[in-house]
Amino acid sequence: MDERIEIRLSGSGGQGLILAGIILAEAAILDGKNAVQTQSYGPEARGGASRSEVIISNESIDYPKVSKSDILLALTEEAMLKYKNGLKENGLLILDSSIEKPDGPYKILSVPILKTAQEKVGKSIVANIVALGTLISATKIVSKEAIEKAVLDRVPKGTEELNKKALYEGYKLVS
Amino acid sequence: MDERIEIRLSGSGGQGLILAGIILAEAAILDGKNAVQTQSYGPEARGGASRSEVIISNESIDYPKVSKSDILLALTEEAMLKYKNGLKENGLLILDSSIEKPDGPYKILSVPILKTAQEKVGKSIVANIVALGTLISATKIVSKEAIEKAVLDRVPKGTEELNKKALYEGYKLVS
Repeated sequence: MDERIEIRLSGSGGQGLILAGIILAEAAILDGKNAVQTQSYGPEARGGASRSEVIISNESIDYPKVSKSDILLALTEEAMLKYKNGLKENGLLILDSSIEKPDGPYKILSVPILKTAQEKVGKSIVANIVALGTLISATKIVSKEAIEKAVLDRVPKGTEELNKKALYEGYKLVS
Repeated sequence: MDERIEIRLSGSGGQGLILAGIILAEAAILDGKNAVQTQSYGPEARGGASRSEVIISNESIDYPKVSKSDILLALTEEAMLKYKNGLKENGLLILDSSIEKPDGPYKILSVPILKTAQEKVGKSIVANIVALGTLISATKIVSKEAIEKAVLDRVPKGTEELNKKALYEGYKLVS
């Protein structure tokens, strides 16, 4: 990856997308890249959809704002509807499979992130980490080693194995 | 507060400054303002000093990058030395009292944040919340009600009383 990649992670509050953004940015640093991770809260943040944004680049990042993202992850329909117009043409839309696919100039990857968290890992709260596994398996924007270390560095003590499994199950959703 | 206020929180990795930034931004939202919260990681992030940045404004925030901050919190000397030149002239420098005061065109508030966390609250890990209490008591950038709710919404379950005490002890360091 030589260029600047902009990623928007969206869903509802409480789905852990801020943490997912921090982990993704820290994984990029472990890979020797630069990263900026942002939460913007405006009047729209008072609705139900929340987002976290990450920019990863080999160069220094002078302009830290994501306008049109290369990648959009959406875990809820409300978030998808709110942010899909901020996805670049031919950008990658990673959707939880509970959400109906929209029409539009996107590459769509529809995967059962929420169901995998709940049924395969056994905790719906790790959907954010399943989503990271899927996103990285599909895009290779950071290395597998880096994301694993970044996840283990950030999750609460005692939940390491659970989150490792979540990451691995997310990875397996794309092959 | 009518204008845009830029705050940089700095210290060493592990002092919880990312979480402090998120809580501060969420408190601003509870007060009906706009906020952006950012972590930037570049080559400099690989050193020992880490930072988290928050912009709070009544207006929408089109340019989300902090260049010269209005307020700098520094919990370590390394962080103070690294970021003091990014503080505006006559900006407010909130320093842990273990750090020697620098010369420069700053308003300096030197307070025993780390010692208060360790001795009065009994857990050095809550220094980030003590620091938020001090910062808000000194600047009133968000309301007391909003910061208390934002802290309680974000800290791990079972630590609410500890963090409330940390916030209160931080408040009391400025009067």
